[in-house]
Amino acid sequence: MIRILMTSMLLISTLVVSSAVSASNEPIQPIKAVTPKDPALVELGKMLFFDPRLSKSGWISCNSCHNLSMGGTDNIPTSIGHAWQEGPINAPTVLNSSMNLAQFWDGRAKDLKEQAGGPIANPGEMASTHELAVSVLNSIPQYRAKFEKAFGSDKVDIDRVTTAIAAFEETLVTPGSRFDKWLEGDKNALNKQELDGYKLFKSSGCTGCHNGPAVGGALYQKLGVHHPYETDSKIEGRKAVTGKDTDLNVFKVPTLRNIELTYPYFHDGAVWTLEEAVKIMGKLQLDRDFNKKEIDSIVAFLKTLTGEQPDIKLPILPPSNNDTPRPQPF
Amino acid sequence: MIRILMTSMLLISTLVVSSAVSASNEPIQPIKAVTPKDPALVELGKMLFFDPRLSKSGWISCNSCHNLSMGGTDNIPTSIGHAWQEGPINAPTVLNSSMNLAQFWDGRAKDLKEQAGGPIANPGEMASTHELAVSVLNSIPQYRAKFEKAFGSDKVDIDRVTTAIAAFEETLVTPGSRFDKWLEGDKNALNKQELDGYKLFKSSGCTGCHNGPAVGGALYQKLGVHHPYETDSKIEGRKAVTGKDTDLNVFKVPTLRNIELTYPYFHDGAVWTLEEAVKIMGKLQLDRDFNKKEIDSIVAFLKTLTGEQPDIKLPILPPSNNDTPRPQPF
Repeated sequence: MIRILMTSMLLISTLVVSSAVSASNEPIQPIKAVTPKDPALVELGKMLFFDPRLSKSGWISCNSCHNLSMGGTDNIPTSIGHAWQEGPINAPTVLNSSMNLAQFWDGRAKDLKEQAGGPIANPGEMASTHELAVSVLNSIPQYRAKFEKAFGSDKVDIDRVTTAIAAFEETLVTPGSRFDKWLEGDKNALNKQELDGYKLFKSSGCTGCHNGPAVGGALYQKLGVHHPYETDSKIEGRKAVTGKDTDLNVFKVPTLRNIELTYPYFHDGAVWTLEEAVKIMGKLQLDRDFNKKEIDSIVAFLKTLTGEQPDIKLPILPPSNNDTPRPQPF
Repeated sequence: MIRILMTSMLLISTLVVSSAVSASNEPIQPIKAVTPKDPALVELGKMLFFDPRLSKSGWISCNSCHNLSMGGTDNIPTSIGHAWQEGPINAPTVLNSSMNLAQFWDGRAKDLKEQAGGPIANPGEMASTHELAVSVLNSIPQYRAKFEKAFGSDKVDIDRVTTAIAAFEETLVTPGSRFDKWLEGDKNALNKQELDGYKLFKSSGCTGCHNGPAVGGALYQKLGVHHPYETDSKIEGRKAVTGKDTDLNVFKVPTLRNIELTYPYFHDGAVWTLEEAVKIMGKLQLDRDFNKKEIDSIVAFLKTLTGEQPDIKLPILPPSNNDTPRPQPF
């Protein structure tokens, strides 16, 4: 009797969900717009995101490598750091990054707040220190007023700095893609090739890793399940975090949202075209040789994942003054 | 009879002007807001201004050194170029630059259009070539559509690229400063110290060079009229353009609009504080030793020249594609 009742309830609940959300059976869910909970905190975070004074040189900001004009990336294979150092890895997009299970390719930061502190103090990136960055901000009364507004007191510390940057980054989502319109019921939002591509994307197993609203970002996976990935990169992936040999070449699965904007591809940024990236992924991860027509259809589908880009008003940064530590560009 | 009539007319016209514009007798005039004549051209120019693909590396845009979050400058002594080359000179602000009699410190470009082509192809700055930059833009259909909209055909060439950038830059004016409010009749817009500073600025002769709406930019002057400017810089000023020994150390007088935002000062960017800059200018140009009170009052006046900063919506740049020449960051 109890079992019958539960089965009935399950059926009813399934029916209700099905009628309310047409996309409920799809492995990908629409991106939802975000309404900032704390506008003062987000505004401060935006200023910090664009402020090159968080770097030693005074010339590199978060936006330098996570350029919001360019899909939240720098569109070069690996990033340029202080004094033009060649970075070891491709800058992941900041767009929709709040949906990642962890941050960085190897997941070594548990969230956006922890991530934000990394590049500031990395000698190969912004090359400052948390102490210096805080000291710069603390010297500027207009910044202290913004901290006051956001946190209730004008204390500046690295915890507050990274909290604010993370709060801004959480707003950087890209709803409204053509694929999301299709998911939400507009069956004309995709053409036949794009829909064929999506069906193949599912049937061939891509959605095993690239799923959820971000079409990735939700799990770790080895790059090279069936065949090894050929690269000159020395990056070890999750092994650098866990120390386990089995985590060699294991990476956080990247989001495919806005993938048309976030070239070049893979952690080494060695692949410039979506066609080549799809071909490589098919072979390495699925042991499948996609033909040209299949590749083209998957690429056509992937391009439907480009959403509305964040609407950003460029922040006006308060000037340094006679008490502000000076940048050291050279 | 004719002479009497003309004199009368002159008197009448002087009276009319005086009553209409209270600031007509001041050596500085208010900045006027600019309404873009051609919004499509300005929008294209904004995209190009923010597009790092005009550089060889794909990482340096006009905005990298003329940062619109920071008074249209980079706030470092001399600019960072491709591969972190140390530039020879301080980046002049792009704000109100349309009012300059010519562009660059030495006036070697006759206008903003001619200026815009310089850094793109300068090996020490963006290190691209006009051909490569045009080729990048021409490969991107979304850009060609913007050229079509702005120019009536989708041809991309360097003349159009620089025309568009200049059109955008012409919109980068900063009206609404407290000093302009005072000029326009709001006698409470300045406090006593600021007004004392302005009076001293005039009576001591600063307005001999720093005049007009941009408070500079309208003529060339030798840096070191009475005493030489001490510097490690090898920059020769106008001599590099004219070849004349008498033009050694002659520079375009920089605008003082937004001077609080455009530190560090002078062509070598060696001076970080307005107090020191005023002291040096007094001694070198006017052979006058301003005392601390005088310096403080002039600095207080100078800070009233900060206007409303341009309201910029960050452009979303169209992605490169398989046909786009790739950046060469390393």
